[in-house]
Amino acid sequence: MKLTIEKSALLDALQKVQSIVGQRSTLPILSNVLLRAEGDLVSLTTTDMEVCVKTSVAAEISDAGGTTLPARRFFSICRELPAGQVEIEVDAKDVATIRSGPSFFKLVGLPEEEFPPLPEFDENSVYSVDQVVFREMLQKVTYAASTDETRYILNGALLSFKDEKLTVVATDGRRLAMVEQEIEFSEDAQVDLVVPSKTINELIKTLGEEGVLRIRVSATQVAFDFDQILVISKLIEGTYPNFQQVIPSQCEERVAIDRETMLLAVRRVSLLTDDQTASVKLNFGSNKLELVTNNTEIGEARETIPVKYEGKELSIAFNPGFLMAPLRHLDSDEIFFELSDELSPGVIKTNVPFLYVLMPIRVS
Amino acid sequence: MKLTIEKSALLDALQKVQSIVGQRSTLPILSNVLLRAEGDLVSLTTTDMEVCVKTSVAAEISDAGGTTLPARRFFSICRELPAGQVEIEVDAKDVATIRSGPSFFKLVGLPEEEFPPLPEFDENSVYSVDQVVFREMLQKVTYAASTDETRYILNGALLSFKDEKLTVVATDGRRLAMVEQEIEFSEDAQVDLVVPSKTINELIKTLGEEGVLRIRVSATQVAFDFDQILVISKLIEGTYPNFQQVIPSQCEERVAIDRETMLLAVRRVSLLTDDQTASVKLNFGSNKLELVTNNTEIGEARETIPVKYEGKELSIAFNPGFLMAPLRHLDSDEIFFELSDELSPGVIKTNVPFLYVLMPIRVS
Repeated sequence: MKLTIEKSALLDALQKVQSIVGQRSTLPILSNVLLRAEGDLVSLTTTDMEVCVKTSVAAEISDAGGTTLPARRFFSICRELPAGQVEIEVDAKDVATIRSGPSFFKLVGLPEEEFPPLPEFDENSVYSVDQVVFREMLQKVTYAASTDETRYILNGALLSFKDEKLTVVATDGRRLAMVEQEIEFSEDAQVDLVVPSKTINELIKTLGEEGVLRIRVSATQVAFDFDQILVISKLIEGTYPNFQQVIPSQCEERVAIDRETMLLAVRRVSLLTDDQTASVKLNFGSNKLELVTNNTEIGEARETIPVKYEGKELSIAFNPGFLMAPLRHLDSDEIFFELSDELSPGVIKTNVPFLYVLMPIRVS
Repeated sequence: MKLTIEKSALLDALQKVQSIVGQRSTLPILSNVLLRAEGDLVSLTTTDMEVCVKTSVAAEISDAGGTTLPARRFFSICRELPAGQVEIEVDAKDVATIRSGPSFFKLVGLPEEEFPPLPEFDENSVYSVDQVVFREMLQKVTYAASTDETRYILNGALLSFKDEKLTVVATDGRRLAMVEQEIEFSEDAQVDLVVPSKTINELIKTLGEEGVLRIRVSATQVAFDFDQILVISKLIEGTYPNFQQVIPSQCEERVAIDRETMLLAVRRVSLLTDDQTASVKLNFGSNKLELVTNNTEIGEARETIPVKYEGKELSIAFNPGFLMAPLRHLDSDEIFFELSDELSPGVIKTNVPFLYVLMPIRVS
């Protein structure tokens, strides 16, 4: 294998596949990036056996071929090289010679045959979504997923392709975030996928600013194709809990609140809470909301903000972190808070199909 | 105590004293900042019993007095407040009420009597140095200090006021950095001080862009006065090693090298080394320097840079981190490398009074 490539293009491609490489992998090959040069493209692939990322970039290829190189070291070398052309030549023993300006490197690699093969996908069940729309959907819900490894089915997001729409859901059992989008797919392609949070975060990071994303599915894996990038991920096996039953069917009161104002106020009053058993009390009155925290050892904080509310006086307490999370990840100016009483879940909605169900905290 | 102060001024003052506060102090009072309001100034003091930082800021004071408040929490509150006036009122039980715009906080403090008193200083031995000059001196040497706690005398920098000049030295036994500056002080005020690295780093961070720094000394402490800031530090007790004897009195060869070019080249070739037993080999030839690293498991790297050299061919190996450290902290375009043979220490000099002595690594 022998090729010449612009430093900035190589660095850009390496950056896209870099985050998947394990820090301390037991299998040395998983610390390496697979390089394959063919035609006028070189592809770069990394995997941790759960998620796999592949990208391609244009290069001037003199000899086609493939090898694998230590990903982090190859990335550091590329980053430190001066701007300009980089020449990479790999011998039969997978030792790569890298030349650029006054710099000369020999980097010991491993044969490409040792690299795990990519899985195959059924081309019959393919879904298409706008990249920007999909990234925004993921951003609005993924923070609500559980990080408790014993609840593995909740360690990701549900992608439900049903009833002519895509529904994305994440929950950790104490709060649930859901977002919906109408998309087109065939009647017999209805499916529920549970995608690991790691993959979701990788997608949020790498999805582009325009164009369509193609999603393909096999029995145990899912592939996301966009621009020059392919992300393949294992699915979480098992049945996702019936999330519809935790969504309250009706509520007694509805409040309109400026999102940014509420976020800043909750952030300030939560400064006087401890991380563990924290709660912030919301006292709703006529067109105003008072936020209060109280801790005998630390002190207390209170702040009143204007809201649009004409209902009954109502007090309810929530975990401040769980209350702030959706406010941070939404982009609408105004949110709607639906409440019934101090023991019933609160629901945050926006003027687009999004909802966030949050269990209150009982305070004596 | 009752006062009103501009948020930005309070935040700025808190930032100056913040870094000294211990993360998890066994003495709760050391997590607090001492506030004392008098005249038209409020002073803020923090200490970890080794270093103490005090600053003052203008405020509108209605009731003079003092208290101590949890420093980190007080800082977070101040940071999150909207811009504008902050009103602070402290009751007899050291509970502070903080009001700003719509925000209201009560913060539980501790009595000011519990705060450790500041030490006294002899006003007879006072040294004056330009702040910028002093900071640059510290920056050029402090990285060479030892972090090995068993060699406590080397865990700081020597400030030697002797022979009409200030000499600052740091060493860890394998390399030594020294810088000198002529300053004026009385003949009988000659003294050697060993100041802990923590204090040195605090000074580098807080020293200003103009004006004079006053240094006062007691038997066990040193005080640095500048702008509205006072930094008091314990001295490291003991006798600093005789650093003059490790400085080679003469050398056989002298090379002029562009500092930035050398730094980038060493950084690149050191990418193919392991952290532990790393060495970079320097091969000097006629007006050129070849840098080489070699590791059978990882690979090799080489780069040649132009230098001004007409001496004998010479090869010498150094630890790449120790070689890069002074190059990173100097600001001159050109450095001078003085060498004799592959077993004798190398010396880096600049066109101002600075030197760095580095022991070579024996390579078979």
